[in-house]
Amino acid sequence: MDERLSKIESPRDLVGMSNSDLAALAEEMREALCNLVSQRSAHFSSNLGVIELCLALHSTFDFSKDRLLWDTGHQIYPHKMITGRYHEFGTIRTKSGLMGYPNPQESPYDLFMTGHAGCSVSTALGLRCGDDLLRSNEGRHSVAVIGDGAFVSGIVFEAMNNAGGLKRKLLVVLNDNKMSICPRTGSLADMFDRMRTTKFYAGFKNEIIHMLDKVPLVGEPVERILGNIKEAFKAGLHGGMLFEELGFRYIGPIDGHDIRQMRKYLAKVKKLNEPVLLHVVTEKGHGFRPAAEDPVYFHTPAPFVRANGQAVPLGTTASKAAYTNIASEAIETEMEANSRVVVLTAAMCQGTKLEKVRDRFPDRFFDTGICEEHAVAFAAGLAKAGMRPIVDIYSTFLQRAYDQIFQEVTLQDLPVTFLLDRAGVTGPDGPTHHGMFDLGYLRLFPNMVVMAPGDITDMRGMIAWALTHNSPTSIRYPKANAETVEGERDPIMLGRAEVLRPGRAGTIVACGTLLTECLKAAQILAEEGLDFGVINARFVKPLDTETLLRAITQTPVVVTVEEATLMGGFGSAVLEMASDAGVSAAHVQRVGVPDRFVEHADRGELLAILGLDAAGIAKACRKRASAAAVHQDAVPDGAA
Amino acid sequence: MDERLSKIESPRDLVGMSNSDLAALAEEMREALCNLVSQRSAHFSSNLGVIELCLALHSTFDFSKDRLLWDTGHQIYPHKMITGRYHEFGTIRTKSGLMGYPNPQESPYDLFMTGHAGCSVSTALGLRCGDDLLRSNEGRHSVAVIGDGAFVSGIVFEAMNNAGGLKRKLLVVLNDNKMSICPRTGSLADMFDRMRTTKFYAGFKNEIIHMLDKVPLVGEPVERILGNIKEAFKAGLHGGMLFEELGFRYIGPIDGHDIRQMRKYLAKVKKLNEPVLLHVVTEKGHGFRPAAEDPVYFHTPAPFVRANGQAVPLGTTASKAAYTNIASEAIETEMEANSRVVVLTAAMCQGTKLEKVRDRFPDRFFDTGICEEHAVAFAAGLAKAGMRPIVDIYSTFLQRAYDQIFQEVTLQDLPVTFLLDRAGVTGPDGPTHHGMFDLGYLRLFPNMVVMAPGDITDMRGMIAWALTHNSPTSIRYPKANAETVEGERDPIMLGRAEVLRPGRAGTIVACGTLLTECLKAAQILAEEGLDFGVINARFVKPLDTETLLRAITQTPVVVTVEEATLMGGFGSAVLEMASDAGVSAAHVQRVGVPDRFVEHADRGELLAILGLDAAGIAKACRKRASAAAVHQDAVPDGAA
Repeated sequence: MDERLSKIESPRDLVGMSNSDLAALAEEMREALCNLVSQRSAHFSSNLGVIELCLALHSTFDFSKDRLLWDTGHQIYPHKMITGRYHEFGTIRTKSGLMGYPNPQESPYDLFMTGHAGCSVSTALGLRCGDDLLRSNEGRHSVAVIGDGAFVSGIVFEAMNNAGGLKRKLLVVLNDNKMSICPRTGSLADMFDRMRTTKFYAGFKNEIIHMLDKVPLVGEPVERILGNIKEAFKAGLHGGMLFEELGFRYIGPIDGHDIRQMRKYLAKVKKLNEPVLLHVVTEKGHGFRPAAEDPVYFHTPAPFVRANGQAVPLGTTASKAAYTNIASEAIETEMEANSRVVVLTAAMCQGTKLEKVRDRFPDRFFDTGICEEHAVAFAAGLAKAGMRPIVDIYSTFLQRAYDQIFQEVTLQDLPVTFLLDRAGVTGPDGPTHHGMFDLGYLRLFPNMVVMAPGDITDMRGMIAWALTHNSPTSIRYPKANAETVEGERDPIMLGRAEVLRPGRAGTIVACGTLLTECLKAAQILAEEGLDFGVINARFVKPLDTETLLRAITQTPVVVTVEEATLMGGFGSAVLEMASDAGVSAAHVQRVGVPDRFVEHADRGELLAILGLDAAGIAKACRKRASAAAVHQDAVPDGAA
Repeated sequence: MDERLSKIESPRDLVGMSNSDLAALAEEMREALCNLVSQRSAHFSSNLGVIELCLALHSTFDFSKDRLLWDTGHQIYPHKMITGRYHEFGTIRTKSGLMGYPNPQESPYDLFMTGHAGCSVSTALGLRCGDDLLRSNEGRHSVAVIGDGAFVSGIVFEAMNNAGGLKRKLLVVLNDNKMSICPRTGSLADMFDRMRTTKFYAGFKNEIIHMLDKVPLVGEPVERILGNIKEAFKAGLHGGMLFEELGFRYIGPIDGHDIRQMRKYLAKVKKLNEPVLLHVVTEKGHGFRPAAEDPVYFHTPAPFVRANGQAVPLGTTASKAAYTNIASEAIETEMEANSRVVVLTAAMCQGTKLEKVRDRFPDRFFDTGICEEHAVAFAAGLAKAGMRPIVDIYSTFLQRAYDQIFQEVTLQDLPVTFLLDRAGVTGPDGPTHHGMFDLGYLRLFPNMVVMAPGDITDMRGMIAWALTHNSPTSIRYPKANAETVEGERDPIMLGRAEVLRPGRAGTIVACGTLLTECLKAAQILAEEGLDFGVINARFVKPLDTETLLRAITQTPVVVTVEEATLMGGFGSAVLEMASDAGVSAAHVQRVGVPDRFVEHADRGELLAILGLDAAGIAKACRKRASAAAVHQDAVPDGAA
């Protein structure tokens, strides 16, 4: 079953293998992928699509010294299998196991730890120029493999423009599988479609002759001649003009599942001393029919039956709705009630559960592709025209649009609402996907309101409230099961926190959905005789100064809890507030994510490791309470 | 001299004017520009280049309802002159005067306050889609004018891809003046050069016939035919293929100083119901020979003699070297000593004073154009290959690369050194150019060292030190005259502050080049009998915990001073440190930039307004000292 694959210790073992041997190896790799992913959620269809490409690359170049960058990185599985990690392959995306993205700590064949799209051409060019300066005699090659979904990201264009200008030897392999995670949008998608409809490269010259024979050289209006040529070019006779204009030699399209053809063209382009774009057409989900037929679902499918792709029934432990679902339902409700509400996503329609909204309100749904910068500036234009845009982007990906949040949104004070999904710990994707920095980076900008819902009730209330507020707003929430805090609740009001539980021994101030863990922690402490109150902060900016100062001046211990880095986050905002009021915060303990990148593991495992579950929060409270009891002088000294 | 111009109250006054009247008006506007800018530093050559374009646009469209976006915005002067602001024109870039960029608070004809490049196509598309949803019956037009310098910015490509896919009516005017601020680099620059060398549009069809006549249809190798056509297209016969591939109809190039021709083509494209790119060729500095001959110098020239462009001698008040110069000299020194050091700029070679470095080390100097994202990822690739890249970008523009700082640099822990020029208050450019947020946004990321030099000695020491540190480093400094603190100085050591002056009444902790103002403030206070010490913090991350905690526990008042927003900045880091140590910070006063956008004015004026000059700092210390004297209980209570 894996007789070839199990013997591959490194890509050097591919040297000398025939095309048919490699094709047989590809089948074993496909089988291994299907077996793994049928049992555990992981990136799937994109990996099925690049197996042959991966083998063709590794059997043509020597990436122990040549440079290989897999853009975005979730299509790294075949590469991991043949670079000495096949025997650990079953651990992928589990705690202490292989990462689901490239990881230089695992292998020297992984150069950059990535997860955000589009930067491979830039880093490949940097490696190229560095190698030219330091070891030009070694003749190293620099290769970036980038999908058509990532290709639309602005940085790719910046890098191509720079590379084309520098005219250095560089190979960009465009892995064209017709998809981002969702179907692509935009004019490049149309262009790729036109290009794909032409015959593969070998048959392409005949068409030129055919076309030229038909061009009427006399007796026709000049416009028609021009039009014919232009259309012929656009129709794919030389669809690579865009790349050629950018200074790249375009070659393709070639069949990305034909190892022989790919090795032939890779061997050719290896000799070219200039920037080259090799257009490879692959099929997402290739070789496993259910995945090829529904590559969106099979991007990261739930466990399924190997034979037919049917999802494995989850039995009685059916998962609760996630905050993502609650947000999506709330968006739908608001769009129904208010025709000015529009929603934007950057290629994450599936991840943000917006398919229903897209289908129901096609005129007010915009998917920009993996273009966060444009999405935010585009939303600003919509807001300026009088719409109420919601920008629904993962916390960590919104970093791409940081400057547009500054200039296009907050500086203009426009009412754009940011939904930052996947804020905090996201789980098995790891450090590139955790959304740890948003509280710190968003609250820096004037005019920006920053919110973190404590539960489902808050989430709905905040989305509704944000759409009535005439300034920028942001709401961040994790990838987690949605929970509801029972009881009478305060309505959402600008800069107002909510006291959910009084307490004399101390106060836990919860920022975000760890609120329910904080309430559990208070319960644990109460059972031990420690009477801790709980405040649901709701607003990171503006803070509820009155409520929070009261807690600080009236309880001997205050513990702030946030699922975000402690650098400049919610707890820091509380310290700033205390300092501005001249109040001691020596008895304030900030609990959150320390100043390091957090590994991949299940959400629950990570929260426990970080001390952000109920037990960890209770422990922090207990420790601080006993310190306060010892140091009587640590009782707050009131306003100075 | 301005008989026409002085009567223009709004663009409606242009309606019905003949082409020759408009040309005469253009001459008056050019004269007004030359007169203004000869007397005061302002953006010049780009404005001279767009006068005719501005008049052609305003006489073709009605921008009281149509939408006009001037990308970047420093070429807004002609637009301001004819939108009711000519009589205030002399106040431009002065305190309480007109802003040097578009400003919606000045006029409804200015839609977005901008200053960072490349977002106009996105916002124009947003306005288009918003107008389509809210007022489709009004038939409003949406027009973005973007220079070829800004055009390479990735977000433009993202927006074109989206617009081309949506197929909405949208006009993008490419103002091709062959320049960014400095000469452009990259393959698009080459493409524009090829396109410009063709005849203007009217004469362009003849060339097609000519070319087709020469194509050998028989008896020649197919490759040659293909090659001929491809080269013909690339050479400019239809240089617009790149735009056509992106879904735009390409028209041009047309002469941007020929009002008649421009109005003719604008009237034509106004009727097209699709995305259109109109390629207009202008000359930077047009109509004023010295500026046309040296547009780089005349981008924002010093005051000059109107007749010949000679700089006006500054007399005896010759300005001191700026921190920018010190940085550039230090870079040169380091590059001389270490062949691994490379330097990158994003089209700001002039602003960062790197011309000499560029000319001296052409192989180790990279100008990416206005592509901050790519510049940072490119630097990461260079670092991975073993180089020591310095990325020299203005503080506010580095926001564009926020996500690359995260993923490509800090997550990989690569030794890239960021020089953030124009940090803090930058002066007459105003809120788009002030660098207020960097301390907050940089210190969030693990592995990143954040430094702010106190003076010239620090600056040199930090650049040298950063290049020996094997992790990401950043150094931020303002656009200000460079100063030197006299006396024995400590060497730069990771996370070590420097005590420059002891004091029992209080401690001023200076973060950055306001250090010299802090020393002056201490002197003022000393003369009043208040004995304040001064610490030069140097490191924002990691903080010198030992030195700073000593100050907090041993002096009754601590005042932190930073030229940055107080949200999450240096002072907040100090508060975090105190809280982590369980020490009260009730007697710590943070002095810095409040949570609002700061207007334009001279640096000195702004520092005074913000209380960041010596007088303001002394005042803050005095106030806090008297509060501390009243509230004896505010004396710090030591470790809790």
